[in-house]
Amino acid sequence: MRAVVLHSHGGPEVLTIEETSDPAPGPDEVVVDITATALNRADVLQRMGHYPDPRGVVPEIPGMEYSGTVSAIGARVTLWKVGDRVMGIEAGGCYAEKVATHERQVLAVPTAIELVDAAAIPEVFLTAWDALVVQGGLTSGRWALVHAGASGVGTAGMQIASAIGASIAVTCSAAKMEACAALGADLVLERSPHDWQRDLKAAHPNGVDVILDVVGGDEINRNLASIAVNGTIVQVGTMAGATTQVNVGLLMMKRARWIGTTLRGRPLEQKAALARRFSAEMLPLFATGVLKPVVDSIYPFEQIAEAHRHMEANANIGKIVVQIAP
Amino acid sequence: MRAVVLHSHGGPEVLTIEETSDPAPGPDEVVVDITATALNRADVLQRMGHYPDPRGVVPEIPGMEYSGTVSAIGARVTLWKVGDRVMGIEAGGCYAEKVATHERQVLAVPTAIELVDAAAIPEVFLTAWDALVVQGGLTSGRWALVHAGASGVGTAGMQIASAIGASIAVTCSAAKMEACAALGADLVLERSPHDWQRDLKAAHPNGVDVILDVVGGDEINRNLASIAVNGTIVQVGTMAGATTQVNVGLLMMKRARWIGTTLRGRPLEQKAALARRFSAEMLPLFATGVLKPVVDSIYPFEQIAEAHRHMEANANIGKIVVQIAP
Repeated sequence: MRAVVLHSHGGPEVLTIEETSDPAPGPDEVVVDITATALNRADVLQRMGHYPDPRGVVPEIPGMEYSGTVSAIGARVTLWKVGDRVMGIEAGGCYAEKVATHERQVLAVPTAIELVDAAAIPEVFLTAWDALVVQGGLTSGRWALVHAGASGVGTAGMQIASAIGASIAVTCSAAKMEACAALGADLVLERSPHDWQRDLKAAHPNGVDVILDVVGGDEINRNLASIAVNGTIVQVGTMAGATTQVNVGLLMMKRARWIGTTLRGRPLEQKAALARRFSAEMLPLFATGVLKPVVDSIYPFEQIAEAHRHMEANANIGKIVVQIAP
Repeated sequence: MRAVVLHSHGGPEVLTIEETSDPAPGPDEVVVDITATALNRADVLQRMGHYPDPRGVVPEIPGMEYSGTVSAIGARVTLWKVGDRVMGIEAGGCYAEKVATHERQVLAVPTAIELVDAAAIPEVFLTAWDALVVQGGLTSGRWALVHAGASGVGTAGMQIASAIGASIAVTCSAAKMEACAALGADLVLERSPHDWQRDLKAAHPNGVDVILDVVGGDEINRNLASIAVNGTIVQVGTMAGATTQVNVGLLMMKRARWIGTTLRGRPLEQKAALARRFSAEMLPLFATGVLKPVVDSIYPFEQIAEAHRHMEANANIGKIVVQIAP
């Protein structure tokens, strides 16, 4: 198969496609012929050498999600058959024409969704749902705050909150505020250095129940000041800095929870449990059109370096998809 | 009744006893004739003017726990009758001969326990159990770490961990290490500036499942480095400083939870729920002698200022009790 194999780390130019060996399915695995993958911030970090695949797989093929068609199944596989339309998350290996994966991590693609668009679903909807609902405890009637509202996770978070009867505030750049309102945010706040904390406090003096933060850095104390008593902050990234001066007194006064999370490093049983629960609780809403992948752009596989440049320009709204097969 | 009424804030000398009006029970309340109260770090902060009673009650009577005898009951009270031996936590008002409190916050004193010793139970056992078990999720087979092992919360935490089949490591000063081992700690670590983190790592390379921290400050990053993947840190105090430089990347890598908590600021329904659950899960272990209050010393009411000086000297092992009535 053809795949992006990292022989060195650096700028987008290190992303070159070459011929490598096909994966074979283990007894509980399926092989998926990949239609499309999609970009994540972690891919950029991995490309630069800062965030290796935790499995230490050689050769190093990046790519953390896929959509495609099952092309082979292991001897014990019961959930899938050859030809099934599927999608899912991986710790790596999806910048490729094929991937082998445990059958219980795999998600069905609802018939209403085109396979190429389905690549825009797994990482951001699993991340946003796990952070807001599973770990954050977001329910009907409550308010969430999501930073980087126009990002993939932000656009997924807005849809999920609305779908379960919750409300959502988002921060984003001035240029993206209109798009966030159109995508369903109940309250759109201009991001820092604008004083979003003051604007949020004006609307919600008692704070919000759940905060999903991918930014970190100086936003952390603003999160602690903006969370409601007994609320939950879920830290999904630290794009603005991982080490920061924190007012721990606020965490205590609010009797709040602050949870660090990543999907990538989790063991198989946790990923499988999350996939099965997502199948039960979220996939039906894609089937009925309540939830929709938000695709910013689709690049052909050969232009994957260009796709990375687009992500680094921070101009996207929703997911950057890379189509690998027609 | 006689009570300590704070007319000003400052050193132990502001703790003077005077005559003030008796409390009357509301319809769901009982009045307790207090046998003894016990000191908490928060009392020292309140005395200095840094931690007022969140209810803003006037006159300001400190004291956050009591043991005693029910002397009057409100019209709707069903759980208690006059003469019952009881104990409990309050947001304030226990440096006094009487206190009125909602019946569902009140705990029975097991017959095996002397009333004066029972005053050493409520705050530290509720705090340690809530932090380690209810919020931290400590179970049989798992390891906890508790800082300030010889403190009231530390000595309660050791007993609770042992009683539920868990193991516990504690940090304490070199002078208190022997006492902590005798009180049941499974691993005793000399506290900072000694490198306890290295010693703990040698014994538990994968970290501990739950950390109860009353210290904060520089211990916070050591906690994050010492917590196991998917573990929980419960922040019960920040004696060494509330604001500190935190490596949030560790929180994410560990996929850990960091929970801020206080008992004092909680609303009635949460305090009542905790008291009822504690009655079901912990009181039977006092009745059988598995759990025991650890009393450092008992001061007469008239020497309450001296009791405060003793707490500030940090030489106590277990609780400092103040006896109000024979």
